[in-house]
Amino acid sequence: MTQYEKALKQHELWNGKLETVSKAPVRTREDLAIAYTPGVAEPCKIIAENRAAAYTYTWKSNTIAVVSDGSAVLGLGNIGPYAAMPVMEGKAVLFKEFGGINAVPICLDTQDTEEIIKAVTYLAPGFGGINLEDISAPRCFEIEERLKQTLDIPVFHDDQHGTAIVVLAGIINALKVVKKQVSDCKVIVNGAGSAGIAITKLLLTYGFSNVLLCDKSGILSKASEGLNWMQKNMVEITNPKQETGSLADAMREADIFVGVSAPNIITPDMVKSMNTDSILFAMANPVPEIMPDIAKAAGARIVGTGRSDFPNQINNVVAFPGIFKGALEGRARQITEEMKLAAAKAIASVVPEEKLNENYIMPEAFDSTVTEVVAQAVKDHIS
Amino acid sequence: MTQYEKALKQHELWNGKLETVSKAPVRTREDLAIAYTPGVAEPCKIIAENRAAAYTYTWKSNTIAVVSDGSAVLGLGNIGPYAAMPVMEGKAVLFKEFGGINAVPICLDTQDTEEIIKAVTYLAPGFGGINLEDISAPRCFEIEERLKQTLDIPVFHDDQHGTAIVVLAGIINALKVVKKQVSDCKVIVNGAGSAGIAITKLLLTYGFSNVLLCDKSGILSKASEGLNWMQKNMVEITNPKQETGSLADAMREADIFVGVSAPNIITPDMVKSMNTDSILFAMANPVPEIMPDIAKAAGARIVGTGRSDFPNQINNVVAFPGIFKGALEGRARQITEEMKLAAAKAIASVVPEEKLNENYIMPEAFDSTVTEVVAQAVKDHIS
Repeated sequence: MTQYEKALKQHELWNGKLETVSKAPVRTREDLAIAYTPGVAEPCKIIAENRAAAYTYTWKSNTIAVVSDGSAVLGLGNIGPYAAMPVMEGKAVLFKEFGGINAVPICLDTQDTEEIIKAVTYLAPGFGGINLEDISAPRCFEIEERLKQTLDIPVFHDDQHGTAIVVLAGIINALKVVKKQVSDCKVIVNGAGSAGIAITKLLLTYGFSNVLLCDKSGILSKASEGLNWMQKNMVEITNPKQETGSLADAMREADIFVGVSAPNIITPDMVKSMNTDSILFAMANPVPEIMPDIAKAAGARIVGTGRSDFPNQINNVVAFPGIFKGALEGRARQITEEMKLAAAKAIASVVPEEKLNENYIMPEAFDSTVTEVVAQAVKDHIS
Repeated sequence: MTQYEKALKQHELWNGKLETVSKAPVRTREDLAIAYTPGVAEPCKIIAENRAAAYTYTWKSNTIAVVSDGSAVLGLGNIGPYAAMPVMEGKAVLFKEFGGINAVPICLDTQDTEEIIKAVTYLAPGFGGINLEDISAPRCFEIEERLKQTLDIPVFHDDQHGTAIVVLAGIINALKVVKKQVSDCKVIVNGAGSAGIAITKLLLTYGFSNVLLCDKSGILSKASEGLNWMQKNMVEITNPKQETGSLADAMREADIFVGVSAPNIITPDMVKSMNTDSILFAMANPVPEIMPDIAKAAGARIVGTGRSDFPNQINNVVAFPGIFKGALEGRARQITEEMKLAAAKAIASVVPEEKLNENYIMPEAFDSTVTEVVAQAVKDHIS
């Protein structure tokens, strides 16, 4: 049985990877009178007076919704809300197992930006946070931004910010290995969708100044055509010399390449054209932009991928459980840029300096200390 | 500590009566590759081809949403979505503990009929059924009806139909005790909100023909003023002689009184004016329309209430878990009138004929056989 056949069979046996479980016993009349009527009226009355009491008397304090419209699921694309459910259940499982957070998968049967915003707004009262997932760009930017403006609970699009945070964590550690400074680095981000744009923004916030964002048509600049509104924003803050050209042109003398794009689009010659001690994160999944052995042979010093079967896995799972855990425990109303930077630094810090090397820049996905370290860092940076 | 203080303290200790729990292990890289990427893509692809496969590969087959807008919560009224959460969590607990069904409490931050319909429609893909709860009349009628028309999963407003089903079950057994025929009975239903209207409709469907629906202004007839659209519908199918008058007028020579109204509104004289062998269900909660001992002293033969500390508790908990269990297992697209009637008869059947008496017409809430019997009856009547 292949791994794919095994995955399918297991999903059938599970018949849902998640369940709801009662913490309240209801085995006697008295139990029922406490957990349900008439006793339940007491916390209701207190919350009706003071909405914040919902954090004391309901699961809101430790429960999030994992919301998708199924428009950009894994590498599968726009497969819709029904087919997206296994992924959202899986994400909910990871929130619980890695972060101890209750998570409810919600797959919305609309791909209209305004309707998604309304639906999430309406279902928010019972949740302590909203993790947006697998919503296509550029709608994801507006949906997240608008929800952040109106809701009083954290809203976090993991495809954007979870990815950006782990990439920054990896770069922080990779730069220590190659002994380069942020200010000296030319960075290429390939893929101008939700992940690529969020990575670019966080790298700029961290202090990189020479970042070129590329997509299928090459380097994005003010001269580029067919850009969406967010990409138009991006060419204002990236590409300081307003270079034009292909991805191959962009990569010449680059120090760092981050790919969130497509399989096998990076050639050995492109790697050879980079600066010495180059860092390549080839995160297309499951087939990266270039296979690690080929990249290494072409001269890359540090290579990371999204895969668990190569060194330096750049995996969101070291980020999102701790980020929401910290945000929920600290009762944050938003997940700010400061909290994201703190999370990236915290993830990087989990790899001991003395053990850092070309093949060990990221904590293991199963390193049980990561969530706590990230959660604490996030809590420490709630404004 | 009073029971109310104890209930509040317990809710604080629980900090949510519900949690989500993973059924899939994620302790190793291989686990992760099966439950999440890349393995999870397999069930996604199959569901994308065939939506029905969601019942095989996700929790949809055994999971419902418990949806409220907080507009008519218990006896507390319109306390809003935040304050409604403890009740919806409690309901979700009961679905799991009594029916083995995963249930997610969703409290919507809108009380607009159209917006509620849209929100429920949007979140439906991940659920196998929708239990509407504590939504005020007459909006609840339109919301349920419209959702039933458009969704392909069961939608069931428990305040209406759960209550109607247990009332009918109680009446079926009470009539056996007093040896009266349906066709001979005059029935008074007091309270023309969601429960009262649904009870009236189900009694008519069952075969009662002389049913008078009353509210604060007395008997509802075509001459009544200020009726909402649903009440206007009801006067067309109730009150065959188009009687007018007060509740006291209505109760003269009635055989059955069902109250879903207000505390202490029935006097001993009103009970005395009823037919011999009268049946009174005084279900206002926690204080009934008349206390059972007073009703008995005034001549009522059988008295039921919503309370667990008197005989003949008329409690939805013997209905809704089995109804959804049967509907989900049988993959019903709707919960039809036939299924409701079957459920009521099944509940009545759980009390053995030889044990039936004035003080034992309903199964105990904790009778573990009820859910299965109801579920089977519902399954047997899926069209």
